Amino acid sequence: MRKIDPVKQEAKRRQIMDAALACFARKGLHGTSTDDICAEVGMSPGNLFHYFPSKLALITTIAEAHREQMAQHFADMAQQDDVLAAIEGFALELMKLSMDPVDARFSIELIAEVMGDSEIAKIYLESDRRIKHDLIALLERGIAKGQIDPEIQPEVAATWLIALADGTVSRAQLDPDFSVDTHAPVLVRLIHRFLAAA
Amino acid sequence: MRKIDPVKQEAKRRQIMDAALACFARKGLHGTSTDDICAEVGMSPGNLFHYFPSKLALITTIAEAHREQMAQHFADMAQQDDVLAAIEGFALELMKLSMDPVDARFSIELIAEVMGDSEIAKIYLESDRRIKHDLIALLERGIAKGQIDPEIQPEVAATWLIALADGTVSRAQLDPDFSVDTHAPVLVRLIHRFLAAA
Repeated sequence: MRKIDPVKQEAKRRQIMDAALACFARKGLHGTSTDDICAEVGMSPGNLFHYFPSKLALITTIAEAHREQMAQHFADMAQQDDVLAAIEGFALELMKLSMDPVDARFSIELIAEVMGDSEIAKIYLESDRRIKHDLIALLERGIAKGQIDPEIQPEVAATWLIALADGTVSRAQLDPDFSVDTHAPVLVRLIHRFLAAA
Repeated sequence: MRKIDPVKQEAKRRQIMDAALACFARKGLHGTSTDDICAEVGMSPGNLFHYFPSKLALITTIAEAHREQMAQHFADMAQQDDVLAAIEGFALELMKLSMDPVDARFSIELIAEVMGDSEIAKIYLESDRRIKHDLIALLERGIAKGQIDPEIQPEVAATWLIALADGTVSRAQLDPDFSVDTHAPVLVRLIHRFLAAA
């Protein structure tokens, strides 16, 4: 039996995920076949199957990797003592991620998929719920510290912050005038005015 | 030659558009075939072709009708003397539209399509540009009247307001706790704090 090198194995998986993302960005989730992905990565279907048993498994893994990356950014930011600065910093990180057209289209297609009540929905909604839960905890901490307006309802405010993050993805891609330099300060202002204690 | 009744013709077109929207909500834009739409509306492909020459023509027409509806809501709201109230009222109208899962999924799929640089992109981006243009004019009027913070850059603020509208669509559909009653007052607060003159 051939010995599997876990580092090489992971690199190959990463390479397939990148190839799949490139295909999804060009043709959408539904328009992309496993044959397209095989052609992009230069691999036979049998070999691809060895790494990912289906297109759905591939989409799910990419979605989880995305969400994992987001959770990591969030955890990094949340360590700050200034909760408002943490939330603003997280928003800016997400804005930077939103500038990548390949990732952005994948995110939007995923949201459409989840609305269509697909098998992907359960995973997406669970991670969505977790991010909201963490944001609520952060907002509550900010209120306790006197940094966040105590009149804010953390559950509802968290949802609007996530709405802003969702909207950033589409605006970053669809508005030709959108740029981090121009739009970041105004996003910070928006969040600050929304949340800051008087 | 058979005489065409324009009222019946329009009713039939509307019926086909509704059937197509129902299919798109179930299977996505790419996953839906013209055969699916024919089955949904109970019509032969030849007959469907009489009203819409292609799936693309159908998508484009629905997208234009959506945008037209939005522009109408905007025009209604913009007549108010209080610009801030006008913008808040528009945001609430869009929130109500976002609650419809069929329309919401179509909107999100459309954004994904436009990111994929499709033929639909040109129409979408033109109407997007128009909405932004109208919003900027409204914000400038509000600044002139002393209702809107003069420090706001209208071009950038308009983009963030549209980002909020985009995000409302996804949150209304993906957050199980989302409701107009709970979330509308906080959206109004967010917009108010973002824009109001000190």
